[in-house]
Amino acid sequence: LRPLGRISVAAALAWIDAATGAIETEEVALADAVNRVLAADLRVQQPIPAVDRAAIDGYALDATASLGAGNYNPISVAAVAVEVGEMLPEGADAVIALDLADPGDDGSGVVVVEPVAAGSGVARAAAVAEAGDVLAPTGTLLSARHVGLLAMAGIASVTVIRRPRVRFVIAAARHAAAPIDGNGPMLHALITRDGATVITASLGDAFGAGCDLVLIAGGTGRGRSDRSAKLLAAAGSLDIHGVALIPGETAGFGHTAGGTPALLLPGTPAACLFTYELFAGRAIRRLGRRDPRLPYCSRLAITARKIVSAIGMTEICPVRRTPDGMIEALPPFAEAGLMPAAIGDGFVVVPASSEGFPAGSQVYAYFYDWGEDRAEIIP
Amino acid sequence: LRPLGRISVAAALAWIDAATGAIETEEVALADAVNRVLAADLRVQQPIPAVDRAAIDGYALDATASLGAGNYNPISVAAVAVEVGEMLPEGADAVIALDLADPGDDGSGVVVVEPVAAGSGVARAAAVAEAGDVLAPTGTLLSARHVGLLAMAGIASVTVIRRPRVRFVIAAARHAAAPIDGNGPMLHALITRDGATVITASLGDAFGAGCDLVLIAGGTGRGRSDRSAKLLAAAGSLDIHGVALIPGETAGFGHTAGGTPALLLPGTPAACLFTYELFAGRAIRRLGRRDPRLPYCSRLAITARKIVSAIGMTEICPVRRTPDGMIEALPPFAEAGLMPAAIGDGFVVVPASSEGFPAGSQVYAYFYDWGEDRAEIIP
Repeated sequence: LRPLGRISVAAALAWIDAATGAIETEEVALADAVNRVLAADLRVQQPIPAVDRAAIDGYALDATASLGAGNYNPISVAAVAVEVGEMLPEGADAVIALDLADPGDDGSGVVVVEPVAAGSGVARAAAVAEAGDVLAPTGTLLSARHVGLLAMAGIASVTVIRRPRVRFVIAAARHAAAPIDGNGPMLHALITRDGATVITASLGDAFGAGCDLVLIAGGTGRGRSDRSAKLLAAAGSLDIHGVALIPGETAGFGHTAGGTPALLLPGTPAACLFTYELFAGRAIRRLGRRDPRLPYCSRLAITARKIVSAIGMTEICPVRRTPDGMIEALPPFAEAGLMPAAIGDGFVVVPASSEGFPAGSQVYAYFYDWGEDRAEIIP
Repeated sequence: LRPLGRISVAAALAWIDAATGAIETEEVALADAVNRVLAADLRVQQPIPAVDRAAIDGYALDATASLGAGNYNPISVAAVAVEVGEMLPEGADAVIALDLADPGDDGSGVVVVEPVAAGSGVARAAAVAEAGDVLAPTGTLLSARHVGLLAMAGIASVTVIRRPRVRFVIAAARHAAAPIDGNGPMLHALITRDGATVITASLGDAFGAGCDLVLIAGGTGRGRSDRSAKLLAAAGSLDIHGVALIPGETAGFGHTAGGTPALLLPGTPAACLFTYELFAGRAIRRLGRRDPRLPYCSRLAITARKIVSAIGMTEICPVRRTPDGMIEALPPFAEAGLMPAAIGDGFVVVPASSEGFPAGSQVYAYFYDWGEDRAEIIP
């Protein structure tokens, strides 16, 4: 049996980038727009606000009428009660807060004891945006913040990239050591995180049309029950089988007969996780026009102890933060499975050309979360 | 009309913390466990792996039988083909990779041309975890990484904190300037992000039992159509009305007659967003035993230009990153609504005691995302 090919991680990433093109767009209501990717610049149709409006609850008045007012010179001014967001009445150019003015006796005005500046308490027409302003450019991942703004602009629906459709197969009974399947729920959560929809299938139904990516977990080796690579080769093409990556050596890449990219992820859980993160997740994020980079935070960090790795293979080495802000290696994935991914804070990627890093090295680490950079508000 | 009370943001946060207690737990299947919070330590019941298993596809053999093997001394060794995850057969203590051994002629062994080390290619019993090891402690926010590990441990369901139930009301027709409601979809997305379920209700149905938190957006001022504060006071208690926060002055805090905390968020979109983030989101995260801190990344940053703020009020000042890695102020939320939240990268919180910061100050900034800290893998 020939050894598996071992193409470099860089070549595998280039394959992914070449295999993932644009998919079509769709229109969604604003309520469904959060976490979707804009397919066109969103521009303001008319100024926001369209006209001068009250910025506070209070009394709308002509500011010049309040000139000279003071504690020893209260002035009675014609005014109209207004609420936040209401248009200013004709002739008014300022709003004084409810609690800074006394209603006059006849209900038609207020008594003020200080001059009111023109424009105070007013949301000026076009103060938020002028017609033609870009509210959000193509490619924006819409957040809750954007939705409120779009509603103010009167935008009820937006054109976004359709969610990529991933046909997802757990190759049967692959990892004998796992009493129950963990790859299924793990990958399901990751595919969803990356903005795609999951179409669950069996190996026999894996390679038809109707999806943007085929993802098969397990059966990627060359043991007697391994069928994933053979089936992909028969159903289309197996372009790459074997990557110089630990964990993840038996990953495979190809196309269905219809030209849909198909990725084979090893069934060993840690290899499954990291080949998803490096390759499949990137493919899905690219299809959906999201940021293709890993959804982790990368930072320079100092190694508290040495990190060792085999030369010739790119190795993902799990690390945790030390109390003094450095990183230290955890047992490698090949020995400890997903344990160091679950109890660790992130990982370091040791290039194929390197045997690792001595203690005290400054290296890039990828962290799963913000850690202590997620801070309390200090009011 | 008396001015609204203006309690400090610190006092409002303390109220939130005092008002949010523990809620009960529930059991969920592993497939539904991602993004849930563990309610008890998860411990390993039996070692992982439980027995010695193959770590690679290959041939299981007794390593001592290969002693002395070399290119000029090929040795035929009794061996059994095994796949990743299978138990080692009796007497075997190593696995040689498929492509490093030639099957013998009679199928009962292989020919090796180098000695095999005992334990190589083997996942030793308990190498991942010993019985009693903690796989994940109480309070862990379960990720896709954990799920794969729990499956390896044979754990099919986990005890998690029940999702908080939020009764959510958009107080009718509040913000006259918004042509369509943006607060509803905005808050819906944020409540979901923070792990709660949304029960949509009207103001009339807001204050009954059956939820962990009541959240009302809009109608918090004291204009003629503002009813939220009056209704909460009548239905239970209005403990606080008015916070020294810009944007967000008219926020309110109280309890229903049944003792459920009830929060009133201003309807003006930027104030609605930030009173959610500071107060309501914190309440929901605490109820669900998540990290109560803001889900943003806080970092020291240098101000490229001055940031000004009124003394006496805590002010949230929108900022964006400059190309040279500093931050600069965007137009304030009071003038520009949600625009600076949508186009900006984050914000600075200016304490009530401060008038702001001169250019060149080092201040804590909160960023919505990782920005350029989200990096490519360098293989």
